[in-house]
Amino acid sequence: MKNCIKMTEFERQYNIYLHMVEAGLEKFLPLQRQVWPTSGIPANLAAAMRYSLLSGGKRLRPVMLLASYNMLSEKVEDALPFAAAMEMIHTYSLIHDDLPAMDNDDMRRGKPSNHKMFGEATAILAGDALLNHAYETMAQSNHPLAIKALTHIAYHAGASGMIAGQAADLAMEEEQPDMDMVYYIQRHKTSDLFMGAMKAGLALAGADSTWINAAESYALHYGLAFQITDDILDIIGDEHVLGKSIGKDQSSGKMTWPGTVGLEKAKLDAQTHIEKAIQAAETFGSSGAFFVSLAKQIQNRVK
Amino acid sequence: MKNCIKMTEFERQYNIYLHMVEAGLEKFLPLQRQVWPTSGIPANLAAAMRYSLLSGGKRLRPVMLLASYNMLSEKVEDALPFAAAMEMIHTYSLIHDDLPAMDNDDMRRGKPSNHKMFGEATAILAGDALLNHAYETMAQSNHPLAIKALTHIAYHAGASGMIAGQAADLAMEEEQPDMDMVYYIQRHKTSDLFMGAMKAGLALAGADSTWINAAESYALHYGLAFQITDDILDIIGDEHVLGKSIGKDQSSGKMTWPGTVGLEKAKLDAQTHIEKAIQAAETFGSSGAFFVSLAKQIQNRVK
Repeated sequence: MKNCIKMTEFERQYNIYLHMVEAGLEKFLPLQRQVWPTSGIPANLAAAMRYSLLSGGKRLRPVMLLASYNMLSEKVEDALPFAAAMEMIHTYSLIHDDLPAMDNDDMRRGKPSNHKMFGEATAILAGDALLNHAYETMAQSNHPLAIKALTHIAYHAGASGMIAGQAADLAMEEEQPDMDMVYYIQRHKTSDLFMGAMKAGLALAGADSTWINAAESYALHYGLAFQITDDILDIIGDEHVLGKSIGKDQSSGKMTWPGTVGLEKAKLDAQTHIEKAIQAAETFGSSGAFFVSLAKQIQNRVK
Repeated sequence: MKNCIKMTEFERQYNIYLHMVEAGLEKFLPLQRQVWPTSGIPANLAAAMRYSLLSGGKRLRPVMLLASYNMLSEKVEDALPFAAAMEMIHTYSLIHDDLPAMDNDDMRRGKPSNHKMFGEATAILAGDALLNHAYETMAQSNHPLAIKALTHIAYHAGASGMIAGQAADLAMEEEQPDMDMVYYIQRHKTSDLFMGAMKAGLALAGADSTWINAAESYALHYGLAFQITDDILDIIGDEHVLGKSIGKDQSSGKMTWPGTVGLEKAKLDAQTHIEKAIQAAETFGSSGAFFVSLAKQIQNRVK
């Protein structure tokens, strides 16, 4: 019963952040009001940016940024440009990932993927524009600690962060499954944006390095548990269980965690990373309750 | 004779900036020293980023940034992260422009284009990584006015700037040539990055709005003269002169200035924009000599 009430409080808080993020995305993507070609933005570009950015979703990364900030400050609105920027970066990465030359996915969140709607060329530009607009939005925030938050986000989104994971994923498609490689890919492809989000939120609120380090640890383990669980659900929910259990996702040629260590070991590993994430959140004391609940939420997905 | 000495002084200055930029690009792209996969960056990504960024060229945009800064400050090294960032942004845009879904160019600066060397997927990621690395480099500069310079660059590189020009170019491929459209496309595709470079350089040096506005005007007209001249040389140097003089570059389907107004009118327009650029540079007084010479350099290309 107590556990049930806790979850409701967590969900209530999540929804508050979620609504702020949705409003923020509309606010910081003010493209539709302008008249082209006299001024403003080409209609094809504006439509493609809006289509993917405003297509719903859990908004996990911006919510984590706002929740991190909110552990130390009440003025959550001040962090909103950075939360919106996180979602722009996540969205650009999905648009480019879906391209025929990358994962070649026709669908995303139950709708045609960006290039299916607008063509490949416009999809490439819409992704570029969202990435750039993330930095424009942060730069124009007028937040006194903007540059610190922007630095964390740029690092974890970039060639040493998320993009390193994407490039490793490509490079490994021809290789044998290898735990070091799978760890490298998941850490960068999945955990890095969570790290950027949490560290940016904390940096904006003036957190010290103890909290920043705890956030990095939380995001690392949360991201790994998140991705392992996703890949387990892909297998459990897929009738080609045997085909998938020998190293790679056969349909995409990608290395996965359960594909490399086996399904049962992967379940144990997910549990271990959830526990490590919760342990990292202890640094935040009672303020960290949101993040403890967020980590426990992953457990519920496989139960 | 006097004119000849002046050109030599301009060229000497240009070469100083150029060497600084080349050293800066090596410095701010420190990817090759790291060991992957234990840590660092995937070899394919690092190689693709370096291949296009370190492939020579005039380095016009970073040179303009340094020259703008140097009109007000002697400590040119302090502006170097921003100059390097400008070239990273320019380079990412070329990598993505060359992709099969965009202009489908197999060659760039006399070498195979990025996707021809590394494949489409890696070329997309290398472009994304260079764009992101531009912002990471600026954010890590520790320059007290970093956020101001970054804001100018983000605006002119983004959905209201360079990318607006690229998207309009795509949207117009099926349309009849139209002077408003050609102006919109060239202003954004070509002038905007020059604007970003000059305004960022001046902002870092603490320039007031009079100088920032003059830089915007200079960059607008310089960019138009630059692009019109490029397109004139494409026609003059092409045996299919008649085929190209009826509105569009027939080989690419793109609208060009001489293709829309005719070759002779385009030559006059280029001259007009050079004069307007020189006029804008008068705001900088004797400090603006570099930019006067830079504009005159365009004239020499068609003589």
